[in-house]
Amino acid sequence: MDLMEKVVQLAKARGFIFPGSDIYGGLANSWDYGPLGVELKNNVKREWWTMFVQQRLDMVGIDAALIMNPKVWEASGHVATFTDPLVECKNCHERYRADHIDLKAACAKCGKKGMFTEPAAFNMMMKTWIGPKEEASAVAYFRPETAAAMFVDFPHILQSSRKRVPFGVAQIGKAFRNEITPGNFIFRTREFEQMEIEYFIHPSEWQAQFEHWLAQMHAFMAHVGIDTKRVHELEVAKEDLAHYSKRTVDIEFDYPFGRKELYGLAYRTDFDLSTHAKHSGKPLTYTDPVTNEKYVPHVIEPSFGVDRTVLAIMLSAYDEETVNSADGEADTRIVLRFKPAMAPIKVAILPLSKKEELSSVAKPLAETLAKHWRVDYDETQSIGKRYRRQDEIGTPYCITVDFDTLNDQSVTVRDRDSMKQERVKIAELEAYLSNKL
Amino acid sequence: MDLMEKVVQLAKARGFIFPGSDIYGGLANSWDYGPLGVELKNNVKREWWTMFVQQRLDMVGIDAALIMNPKVWEASGHVATFTDPLVECKNCHERYRADHIDLKAACAKCGKKGMFTEPAAFNMMMKTWIGPKEEASAVAYFRPETAAAMFVDFPHILQSSRKRVPFGVAQIGKAFRNEITPGNFIFRTREFEQMEIEYFIHPSEWQAQFEHWLAQMHAFMAHVGIDTKRVHELEVAKEDLAHYSKRTVDIEFDYPFGRKELYGLAYRTDFDLSTHAKHSGKPLTYTDPVTNEKYVPHVIEPSFGVDRTVLAIMLSAYDEETVNSADGEADTRIVLRFKPAMAPIKVAILPLSKKEELSSVAKPLAETLAKHWRVDYDETQSIGKRYRRQDEIGTPYCITVDFDTLNDQSVTVRDRDSMKQERVKIAELEAYLSNKL
Repeated sequence: MDLMEKVVQLAKARGFIFPGSDIYGGLANSWDYGPLGVELKNNVKREWWTMFVQQRLDMVGIDAALIMNPKVWEASGHVATFTDPLVECKNCHERYRADHIDLKAACAKCGKKGMFTEPAAFNMMMKTWIGPKEEASAVAYFRPETAAAMFVDFPHILQSSRKRVPFGVAQIGKAFRNEITPGNFIFRTREFEQMEIEYFIHPSEWQAQFEHWLAQMHAFMAHVGIDTKRVHELEVAKEDLAHYSKRTVDIEFDYPFGRKELYGLAYRTDFDLSTHAKHSGKPLTYTDPVTNEKYVPHVIEPSFGVDRTVLAIMLSAYDEETVNSADGEADTRIVLRFKPAMAPIKVAILPLSKKEELSSVAKPLAETLAKHWRVDYDETQSIGKRYRRQDEIGTPYCITVDFDTLNDQSVTVRDRDSMKQERVKIAELEAYLSNKL
Repeated sequence: MDLMEKVVQLAKARGFIFPGSDIYGGLANSWDYGPLGVELKNNVKREWWTMFVQQRLDMVGIDAALIMNPKVWEASGHVATFTDPLVECKNCHERYRADHIDLKAACAKCGKKGMFTEPAAFNMMMKTWIGPKEEASAVAYFRPETAAAMFVDFPHILQSSRKRVPFGVAQIGKAFRNEITPGNFIFRTREFEQMEIEYFIHPSEWQAQFEHWLAQMHAFMAHVGIDTKRVHELEVAKEDLAHYSKRTVDIEFDYPFGRKELYGLAYRTDFDLSTHAKHSGKPLTYTDPVTNEKYVPHVIEPSFGVDRTVLAIMLSAYDEETVNSADGEADTRIVLRFKPAMAPIKVAILPLSKKEELSSVAKPLAETLAKHWRVDYDETQSIGKRYRRQDEIGTPYCITVDFDTLNDQSVTVRDRDSMKQERVKIAELEAYLSNKL
C-alpha cells in the first residue's frame, strides 16, 4: 500500500473521514468528517482564525450566505467563463473533459470510435432555484469561491469596522464546483471548504505585502504541522497569469499522487473591486483620512483549502516505526505525529482494568480533564493495544490508572512520540498537561 | 421603533449582520454575518460544541457533506412529503401558500378574483445536479436538515468511536429550505445553520433522557445569555405529534414579532434508524456488550438553530438606559449586555489622543492582549463617543491609555455594565482581565 491508501484506510477505520452516504452506496466522491476528523478540521479552522483574525488588529472576519445574487457571478465572470470544455460521445452520450482524452480514441464507455462531439463549454457552478418556480429568473448558484462576498460586502465592512487601509477581511466557508473529475480522496471534491483573505492595500506597497503574506502562509503551514520539506513555491509565469494579476504564487505539496496545489497567493490589483463597482453601479473606493487620496484599494489574496490542509497534515503526520512488542517480536507501530494543537484527542484515560475500584477514579479524572481538552476514555482490551490505538489517532498523552493509583494518588503518563512513561500526581496532572499541550 | 427594528438597524450599522449581496440589490431575505456577527456566531457554536461534545465522554461530533445521496431524502420522506401546499393565480401566475390566504379573495398581485388553482404540493428542498448533465438521474438536493447524516453515518460512527449506548452524535452545519415566506430578519431564511444532536438510547430510559436533555437545553440558553423569562416550553399535543414521536417539546421565545419556535426536543423512537435500515438494506442495530441484547437504538433529538440563537441573544442583550452626558443633559445609552463569552470584542484599547507617545504604549498593549482575546483599537473621536460605540457592540471592558499612563504604568479599565472605572497596572492587566472574562 502506498502512503495515500494507508491514510485513507486509517481515516475510515478510525473515524477521521468516511465516504458520504455510504449505506446508500455513497455519492460521487463525497466525504463526511467523522468524530476525529471534525475535531482535526475544527482545530485547523480555529488556529487559522486565531492567527489571521483574532491576533491581528488589521483583520476582520465575515461569514456570508452561500447563495449570492447571480449578478455577482455575472460580474466576476463565473457565469460566462467558469467552464470546462467537454465532449460527448454521440453513441452513448457519455461526457468527457476534452483536455483529458484523446479525441480520436474509442469511447471508454461504449467502445465506439470517432463519435465525439466538438468540445463545448459546461458551467461548473452548482445551480438551483430560489422560490417556488423553476424558471430562468429564479436561477441562483451556490458560490464557487468564498472570495466574492468579501468584495461585495466591502462598503458595509469598511463603514462598520472603521478600519483603515491596509486591512484585511477573512472568511471560512463552503464553496461548490460541479467538477467533472473529482478525486484523490478529499483533494478535489464538489463541495469543499475554503479559508480566504482579501487584504486591501495601497498599490504602492504591493510587493512588501505580497512578501509578508507569503511568509505568513509558510508560518501557518509550520504551525499546523505540514511537512515543510514537501512544500514548494511555484511562481506562476508571466504568460500564464490572469490578465489582472501582477504576481501569483501557487504553494504546492508533494502528495503521494504528485506535486499539486495546496494554497495560492495572488496580487489581483484592483480588478475585483473595480469590476463589482462597474457592474453594481456602487462606488467601491476608499479615501485616505490623512492624504485625502481617493482610490480603489488593491488586493493581495492568500487562499487556503481547509480539506487540503487536513489531508496535508495527515500525510505529514503519518509515520511507521519498528518496535519490539510485548512478546519480544519486532512489530510495526503506526503513529500520527500531530502537533498537540491539531490532535483530535489530547488525552486518553486508560484504566488498567474495568474494575469499579479503578473506574471510580478514572471516570471523574476524565471528566475533570474534559473541561479543558477533548478526552477519550477507553477500558477495553490490553493496555498495549489501547496505546497503539491512541498512537494511530495521534493522541499526545495516554494516562493509565492502575492499582498503585489507589495508594499513591498518581497515574502513569505516556508520551506518544518517545513512548516514555512518567509517574505524575493526580493533583498535579492539570498543570503538567497544560504545560505540555 | 420597536425592539426588532432597533436590533436590525444596530446589527447593520455596527457590522453584526448585513443584507446579503447588498450592492446588487440584495437577494430575497439573505443575510451576511459581518465582522462582529461572525465572532458572535462563532462564540455560540464554540460554547455549544464545548458543552455538548468536548466536555462529555458520551458524545462525538461529525461534519457531513451538505449534498447527500438523494435516496436519503426518499427514505426520510422529504422527497414525498416535505412540501407546502401552494396555489397559483391563473391570471398572473403568482403563487401563494394555500394556508396563508383567503382562497376566495382577490389576488394581491393582479387583483383578479376566483382565479386560484387548487392547492398543490411544492417541494421545499433546494435542488441541483451533480456532474455535467441536467437530467433526472443527476438530481441532488442540498440537505434540508443536519439530522439525517447522523443516522446514515451511524454504523461508521459506532464502529470507529467504539462508543456504547447511551451515546450521542452532534453536528453543526448549514441546511437549506426553499421557503416561500422567509422573513423576520434571520429568523426564517432559505439557508440557515443548525446545531443538532441525535442521542441514542435504550428505549427503556427515554423519559429520563428526555428530561435530562430538556434541562441541558435550558442550561445552554442561560449560558449564552438568552433571557429565560422570554423562553417557554410548548408541549406538543398528542394529536399533533408526528406518528413516530412519543413526545415533543417546542422551546419558544418571545420575539418582538410573536412567540415563535427557538429550539425543539423530540423523542423519535427508532423511526429514523429503522427507516434508513429498511431503505438501505443495511442493519442499523446495536448489540449490548453486557446483556447481548440486539436492538435498534431509540433517539432523543435536541435541535438548536444557530441563527435563531444569535437573534435571541441580541434581543435579550439589547438595553437602553438614561444617563447624564458630559454636558449634564439626559442622554440614552444603548448597551448590548452580552455575557463576556458571547461578546464579539472582549477588550477595546482607547488611547486618549492619537499622539505617538500614547500609541507607542497602546498599540503594543493591544497586540499583547490580542494573543488571548479579540481586541478593538480605536483612537478616533472623543472618549465618550468611543465608550458609547463599545457599549453598543457589547464590549465588556474598555481600557484607556492616557498621559498618566506614561508615569504610573497604569491604565483605566471601564466596566460596560456599571460604567465604573478602575486604575490597573499594565503588568497586572492580563491577570485582571483573565479573571473577569
